Amino acid sequence: MYSIGIDMGGTTTKIGIVDAQGVVIKRTCIKTTDYPIFNDYVEALYDALLPLINEVGGMQAIKGIGAGLPNGNYYTGNIEHASNLPWKEIVPFANVVSAKFGLPCTVTNDANAAAIGEMTYGAAKGMKDFIMITLGTGVGSGIVVNGQLMYGHDGFAGELGHVIMDRVHGRACGCGRKGCLEAYASATGVARTAKELLQKDITPSLLRNIELEKITSKDVYDAAIKGDKLAKQVFDFTGKMLGEAFADFVAFSVPEAIILFGGLAKAGDLIMKPIRESMEANLLSIWNGKVKLIFSQLPEDDAAVMGAASLAATPISPKEVL
Amino acid sequence: MYSIGIDMGGTTTKIGIVDAQGVVIKRTCIKTTDYPIFNDYVEALYDALLPLINEVGGMQAIKGIGAGLPNGNYYTGNIEHASNLPWKEIVPFANVVSAKFGLPCTVTNDANAAAIGEMTYGAAKGMKDFIMITLGTGVGSGIVVNGQLMYGHDGFAGELGHVIMDRVHGRACGCGRKGCLEAYASATGVARTAKELLQKDITPSLLRNIELEKITSKDVYDAAIKGDKLAKQVFDFTGKMLGEAFADFVAFSVPEAIILFGGLAKAGDLIMKPIRESMEANLLSIWNGKVKLIFSQLPEDDAAVMGAASLAATPISPKEVL
Repeated sequence: MYSIGIDMGGTTTKIGIVDAQGVVIKRTCIKTTDYPIFNDYVEALYDALLPLINEVGGMQAIKGIGAGLPNGNYYTGNIEHASNLPWKEIVPFANVVSAKFGLPCTVTNDANAAAIGEMTYGAAKGMKDFIMITLGTGVGSGIVVNGQLMYGHDGFAGELGHVIMDRVHGRACGCGRKGCLEAYASATGVARTAKELLQKDITPSLLRNIELEKITSKDVYDAAIKGDKLAKQVFDFTGKMLGEAFADFVAFSVPEAIILFGGLAKAGDLIMKPIRESMEANLLSIWNGKVKLIFSQLPEDDAAVMGAASLAATPISPKEVL
Repeated sequence: MYSIGIDMGGTTTKIGIVDAQGVVIKRTCIKTTDYPIFNDYVEALYDALLPLINEVGGMQAIKGIGAGLPNGNYYTGNIEHASNLPWKEIVPFANVVSAKFGLPCTVTNDANAAAIGEMTYGAAKGMKDFIMITLGTGVGSGIVVNGQLMYGHDGFAGELGHVIMDRVHGRACGCGRKGCLEAYASATGVARTAKELLQKDITPSLLRNIELEKITSKDVYDAAIKGDKLAKQVFDFTGKMLGEAFADFVAFSVPEAIILFGGLAKAGDLIMKPIRESMEANLLSIWNGKVKLIFSQLPEDDAAVMGAASLAATPISPKEVL
């Protein structure tokens, strides 16, 4: 038997058919933005998947569909108020997809899907308590407690990109508040730190060859691996903010490991070293040296598809929500 | 059948025999500080309890012992490095007590015991996700996720008194770091805020009738209910810090409720109103108006005894620890 894993992003929806060992044996994708009407999106999903499903033995070979969705709610199966999708308000994703395919459909958010993938097939295999931090356009998280994803009372627990790191001079965050971790540790946050450092003084830097407003986190990474001092300072600052936040996360749930996933995680020791130093410096001493900091061991493109697919095998427990 | 509940504090150990409905039917206590040798403490515990046990039908009427202990570890049954107890390092509480009484013994920390009491008999009855905040000499917490106490990888999850609220001008905390929530919201923290405000200017205040170094959180409370403006400011500031912290806690676990327990909670609206305002002002907007803020509904003296006793009925699941 196979499962279908769906990883919906604001731009692209990645789709995979996954076997019992977690191997993505068939892959396709559709453009999320091409379908202003949700039912058209579901038709496109069906049309893209049907040939692949037939190649592996037809619908009877598929046990279910799992989906990692922006603002996907595990309890309701809905997408709720996702700001980066064409469909606003409440979208009954699981109901519509389940009816179209004649298969059970289970939903979670994208960071949780990656965490489930990591727990089932990756660095968190065998762990009962860990936190997955996704570093990309935003900062997301999936928190596993006692072997279970933590969903909280409303299905949206684990918004660790929106804990407040600076209450005095905090940067504006996309959420409308100030000083959120995401405003410092997202790709945009990294680029902004670079711009601020470049404007502060006249330290020479490879980044001065790029028009200030066009600098991206990738430019900062490229400069840092060439030894650029200012670019390294950007990673030091980003790592310091993440490490401070992680020390507080440990006081909350004491995970066995914090696992980094996504674009920024590719920076390796450039980001890991300052995170580790800052986390250790800020931890309550009983936890010094006791919390693992590791990178995801899943291919970035497949992690959420694999996690979503493994979610398809898990029945939802009924839960009363707000 | 009855359970024994033990609530160990740095000064006094409260002991109760509790019936199946959670009613404390027999009560006694011993002085924790009277026994520099742990085995003597256990002998005293036995001597204090035996007459009460005999009154309810002897050992065969007792199904087990539950204990809420400073730095009590649910996984190991030990007290580990408690700074406020006569016994240092590792104390094998559950093993020694279990052997002495011939009964199973389960251990947790004091805040977790109060949370279990609240979940079993109090304001959190029927809730699957809530956070108990204990406001006393220190600031402690018990976090319930999906109906289970969160213990984390090492048994010590939920040290929410030690998240860092002020990274720039943070007050020294007893833990050796700076800016912890406990340094502001504990009884000592409240007294310190009063002293700082009194030294800042010459605003008249009833608190000026007390020698500065001797002001306690109770003095601040007494002055505030008499309408003292400066004393009210102390509660406003304390509530502001708690509300800011609670907004971050919500982003982590999205509890149905945050429940306040302990001395400071007696201040009622004096503390609840500024907490609520600050929490709502700092919450990610999706949670505005959705998280209940309530006071414990258990008698302060009995909550941990009741919680510990109900823990006695719960078997521990084996767990590999660090």
